[in-house]
Amino acid sequence: MARIVMKFGGTSVADLERIHNVARHVKREVEAGNQVAVVVSAMAGKTNELVNWVQTMPKVAGAQAPFYDAREYDAVVASGEQVSSGLLAIALQAMGVDARSWQGWQVPVRTDNVHGAARILEIEGGDLVSRFEAGQVAVIAGFQGIGPDNRIATLGRGGSDTSAVAVAAAVKADRCDIYTDVDGVYTTDPRIEPKARRMKKIAFEEMLEMASLGAKVLQVRSVELAMVHNVRTFVRSSFDDPDAPGMSDPLNPPGTLICDEEEIVEQEVVTGIAYAKDEAQISLRRVSDRPGVSAAVFGPLADAHINVDMIVQNISEDGSRTDMTFTVPSADVDKALDQLEKQRQAIGFDVVQSESGLAKISVIGIGMRSHAGVAATAFKALAEKSINIKAITTSEIKISILIDGAYAELAVRTLHSVYGLDKT
Amino acid sequence: MARIVMKFGGTSVADLERIHNVARHVKREVEAGNQVAVVVSAMAGKTNELVNWVQTMPKVAGAQAPFYDAREYDAVVASGEQVSSGLLAIALQAMGVDARSWQGWQVPVRTDNVHGAARILEIEGGDLVSRFEAGQVAVIAGFQGIGPDNRIATLGRGGSDTSAVAVAAAVKADRCDIYTDVDGVYTTDPRIEPKARRMKKIAFEEMLEMASLGAKVLQVRSVELAMVHNVRTFVRSSFDDPDAPGMSDPLNPPGTLICDEEEIVEQEVVTGIAYAKDEAQISLRRVSDRPGVSAAVFGPLADAHINVDMIVQNISEDGSRTDMTFTVPSADVDKALDQLEKQRQAIGFDVVQSESGLAKISVIGIGMRSHAGVAATAFKALAEKSINIKAITTSEIKISILIDGAYAELAVRTLHSVYGLDKT
Repeated sequence: MARIVMKFGGTSVADLERIHNVARHVKREVEAGNQVAVVVSAMAGKTNELVNWVQTMPKVAGAQAPFYDAREYDAVVASGEQVSSGLLAIALQAMGVDARSWQGWQVPVRTDNVHGAARILEIEGGDLVSRFEAGQVAVIAGFQGIGPDNRIATLGRGGSDTSAVAVAAAVKADRCDIYTDVDGVYTTDPRIEPKARRMKKIAFEEMLEMASLGAKVLQVRSVELAMVHNVRTFVRSSFDDPDAPGMSDPLNPPGTLICDEEEIVEQEVVTGIAYAKDEAQISLRRVSDRPGVSAAVFGPLADAHINVDMIVQNISEDGSRTDMTFTVPSADVDKALDQLEKQRQAIGFDVVQSESGLAKISVIGIGMRSHAGVAATAFKALAEKSINIKAITTSEIKISILIDGAYAELAVRTLHSVYGLDKT
Repeated sequence: MARIVMKFGGTSVADLERIHNVARHVKREVEAGNQVAVVVSAMAGKTNELVNWVQTMPKVAGAQAPFYDAREYDAVVASGEQVSSGLLAIALQAMGVDARSWQGWQVPVRTDNVHGAARILEIEGGDLVSRFEAGQVAVIAGFQGIGPDNRIATLGRGGSDTSAVAVAAAVKADRCDIYTDVDGVYTTDPRIEPKARRMKKIAFEEMLEMASLGAKVLQVRSVELAMVHNVRTFVRSSFDDPDAPGMSDPLNPPGTLICDEEEIVEQEVVTGIAYAKDEAQISLRRVSDRPGVSAAVFGPLADAHINVDMIVQNISEDGSRTDMTFTVPSADVDKALDQLEKQRQAIGFDVVQSESGLAKISVIGIGMRSHAGVAATAFKALAEKSINIKAITTSEIKISILIDGAYAELAVRTLHSVYGLDKT
């Protein structure tokens, strides 16, 4: 017997047939003797429709600005999960499984007051647990909670993953199963490297560093939350036959378990290769090297909502002037340059240079903390393919390399191979 | 300055343009210095879609019976008003009107536990009133409340009218304006009698007796509630130009005011002619005249969900046997006869006769309580047209006459004219 939280996204509940399919997955776990809570998103397309209405309404009503009250946005948009949770409860009941729907305000999932992008503060799981223990499946509307103002608050797009992990933490679940349209986390993007393998396990920290690769699978916020509360989070496919053998086997189901590194017995040195295309590099030459200069550079960029990724600053030769390089999405490069020109006086730099069409390749693995030479292996492999490295940043478990975007796929395949990730 | 509750149905909020139109009506009342709460239905078609999903889900999930949990029905279906209330609040804000949405559970509108057809027990109007007084428009999701089980409860179809009247009672509103697709209550159906006139005022009791005629305009339950709490209920058109002159004039806006009879200074003897077609008559001949026989007849019919309308029983000549006549919808006549045959022994009757294709014509007016000869006038007028009267029932303020359905329109026009209703 285990206590499991199951999460299904919008495509998994897109119509009544798929909701029935979800109910079959749930029934299987109940019949395997588990206590089950289910977290659901809105039916696919529904959230977009509702968001579009909210965004269009002010204009239709003659407003000049497209502003709308985020509290009303939340009331409107949260209705999507209200529908899907009710329908799933009905489907389960029709299949003889005791179930009921729970809206965010009923659980209650208590959030802060940041409507539209709220954070969960606390989930009062007492009622849920007593229902569990009475054998009832809790179908919880994801993506929503209730704010201190007694109004519905949504967690922002993709927030249902976060709901699921938070519920799992609150009810001390043994596992949080995220059913999605991929069957797990891969060593790299299979569209680039067909030899990419599905990982059986990945540590929370690695999953966070997987960035673009991981974010397609799971919201970053939900991974952070899972790490903090040590919620074993299992990514699996909602397209698998619900009644195939072994689907409820806690030891060996198909998918990827995101867990504490201590649970990963045979830790690989490198576990995955991630990449991000369409990066642009901006370099400030001969910046005055004094306290507060970084803040002067990056403060205005943050205010302009420009997402800065890699930052490289070297120690200046003479202690007076230094070079500073950072990356932004290619689409934001003009806006960024504009901001920097405005601040030229305040920052004090000589020349600004930029280059678009770059790619960032990242090598990730907790094992590199205790293994020397991981970076050297990457540099050597790329050099053999004549790929020039423009910038390098490292963290304890990640090496990121900035290269010309044209070589992105080649670099991914080269690194995937050199660390032996294509070998089973 | 007045306190007004405004109610808009599904066709009035069918899309963003119409929601904007509703917002213009609301803004007009706010600018006229009134305190305003608005009750809205779901966008037209939305409730049907949601109900259809709920009803179809069990079958898709493989259930033999189409049963579903009424509590889940409520959660799913109430989402429709959640959307429209939020969008209207956004539209009002975009037009510079302070507003917020209120879900049934937020007000809260407390109901009993009869999910899917709940009754309002109490509305805690304190928060609403303090918002009113601060100048904020309350946009309330109609059709819903919260049950003692802390779950959403809907009031049954058409329940938004009831929500509006209940809110008006709770906040002691001066008037409850029901915006609908007709511009008021007519002396009879204008499709039958083009000379039908819109009434300026009608008493609560008369509105209830208008039955079929009135029910097209306003849910019967909401009229009952309005009568109990003496809520002045004003039926008006949502298609009128929101900014036409006089639209906020409390003395003379276009529409029909349903109010206490004391407010109707020049009470007409007869105020309206209602009709119901497709009635069938069933007569039991020589029923044993003893206590409990009516219960033996009508109990089984009620159990079979057959809606019995007129009931006529005459005093028996010799105290042992009597004739009993009643009407049912033509569609139910076979089912009713079937039930009666099953109970023949228990009831004890000789012969059962039935006739379909009849019509019930009703003459309604509070004034007839104090005027003699109202019924005689009707009988004489129908006789002059050679219309045979099959049965008669009367209440204090209504005379109902059963005739051959072929004469229904002629009878309506004749009675409408004989009581002078076609004269302005």
